[in-house]
Amino acid sequence: MGYVTIIRPLNCAITFVSVLVGAWITTGFIYTPQLILAGMIGFIVCAFGNIVNDLYDIEIDKINNPDRPLPSGKVNKKIVISLALFFFIISILFSISLGLPVFLLVLGVLILLFIYALYFKKTIAGNFVVSIITGLSFILGGIVENNSACIFPFLFSFFIHMPREIIKDVIDIKGDKSAGIISLPILLGKERSFNISALLLGILCILLPLPYIMKILHLQYMIVVLIFAYPMIIYVIFRLLKKPQEPVLAKLSNLLKISMAAGLVAMIL
Amino acid sequence: MGYVTIIRPLNCAITFVSVLVGAWITTGFIYTPQLILAGMIGFIVCAFGNIVNDLYDIEIDKINNPDRPLPSGKVNKKIVISLALFFFIISILFSISLGLPVFLLVLGVLILLFIYALYFKKTIAGNFVVSIITGLSFILGGIVENNSACIFPFLFSFFIHMPREIIKDVIDIKGDKSAGIISLPILLGKERSFNISALLLGILCILLPLPYIMKILHLQYMIVVLIFAYPMIIYVIFRLLKKPQEPVLAKLSNLLKISMAAGLVAMIL
Repeated sequence: MGYVTIIRPLNCAITFVSVLVGAWITTGFIYTPQLILAGMIGFIVCAFGNIVNDLYDIEIDKINNPDRPLPSGKVNKKIVISLALFFFIISILFSISLGLPVFLLVLGVLILLFIYALYFKKTIAGNFVVSIITGLSFILGGIVENNSACIFPFLFSFFIHMPREIIKDVIDIKGDKSAGIISLPILLGKERSFNISALLLGILCILLPLPYIMKILHLQYMIVVLIFAYPMIIYVIFRLLKKPQEPVLAKLSNLLKISMAAGLVAMIL
Repeated sequence: MGYVTIIRPLNCAITFVSVLVGAWITTGFIYTPQLILAGMIGFIVCAFGNIVNDLYDIEIDKINNPDRPLPSGKVNKKIVISLALFFFIISILFSISLGLPVFLLVLGVLILLFIYALYFKKTIAGNFVVSIITGLSFILGGIVENNSACIFPFLFSFFIHMPREIIKDVIDIKGDKSAGIISLPILLGKERSFNISALLLGILCILLPLPYIMKILHLQYMIVVLIFAYPMIIYVIFRLLKKPQEPVLAKLSNLLKISMAAGLVAMIL
């Protein structure tokens, strides 16, 4: 089972769906072999990123997540490295068939994931890089189906993931400090981190109605956003501004995840 | 690792390549998203077939192959069943995007694999069914790229796998008898099974030059077949007619596998 959990399959499945959403936004369901292949490439690239991440985190995870496949010894490190290499190669090989822009995007993300695990993660740029990478799955779908509206899920994804990553870094302050990682909350302090997160979510609130105002998405999008996404996001903003304690933070992080899901549903309606 | 070995990844990878070869024969390298997606569907369908097979063989494998993931208890049966169901569903969903003929072929093979594990395997039709299914990966590639020449790898595959399966059944006579399976060698005896295998390989020898004679494939195909495939196949035919003993049989089965590989290389040259 270790070789399955190490790729974080749910994570990869969400990436697959995100690629489809990047193509579906404004157009409705498109179901071409190109798009499904792109989704599968997204799945494989995500698996690659998760494996590389775990490979570089073995020592930290021995303390933070001793149950993960690598630190617990459930999987063989050499096989895991081969698996990462295999995913790297086939995602590049497969992407070639989808044309130069897709190939370059996939290659770029693969390299970025590698650099992220190796270097960025330990810097304050880490949150930014991972939030960008996460959103690029929408861009992949958009490129494949020539759908420029994919910029919206990309932006929404960025402005949800960035504050989420910062909140998660607040939770991890202790572990990160002992590992010598300088995260944003360690550099600027909890309070300023909460303010930045709230600000980013505030920008998201301004961006959310744009596709409706620009007549790119229908009224049902706006209704779902108003009923499901806005209340959660605004609640999170208010809680953040009140300097919440640790037990609340995990809950806020989850609320953002749910509001992202609501936004995705709204966009493909 | 059990969840990886249970799908028999090498087997699945060969199916992936077979799909490509079904499109590449006579045309050279084609590398479209459709074809790669079809290859991946072939991979997943093969994984499904291998899992279903292992699920129905748990009791027999406790005796014959106690190290396999299921009888050894390395994997959870319920998770394995969910995995099979998952592969079943996504291979159907993905195949829809490739059009009705591909969808019907994939659906048909999935059902056939299921019936094979459940019923055919225990009958003398088992060898026939599995040899047909194995060859259908070439047909899948041919359909996707509209390449009717895929009929040749399909035929060659059938006339190599059928005798191979019969030879493997001769090796398994003891285990099959105790499991109540009536295989071809059990029904007709070893000698007649060897003769039938030799006959099928004889037909293969007649079929092999056809694509060259019909000017569908170039001279390099014929040269590779003459140098690599023919000597091995003819050697196997002669050994079979001499009623070989068990230790030789596994070797003959492997020789057929290698000659199949040589044939594949010849066809895409």
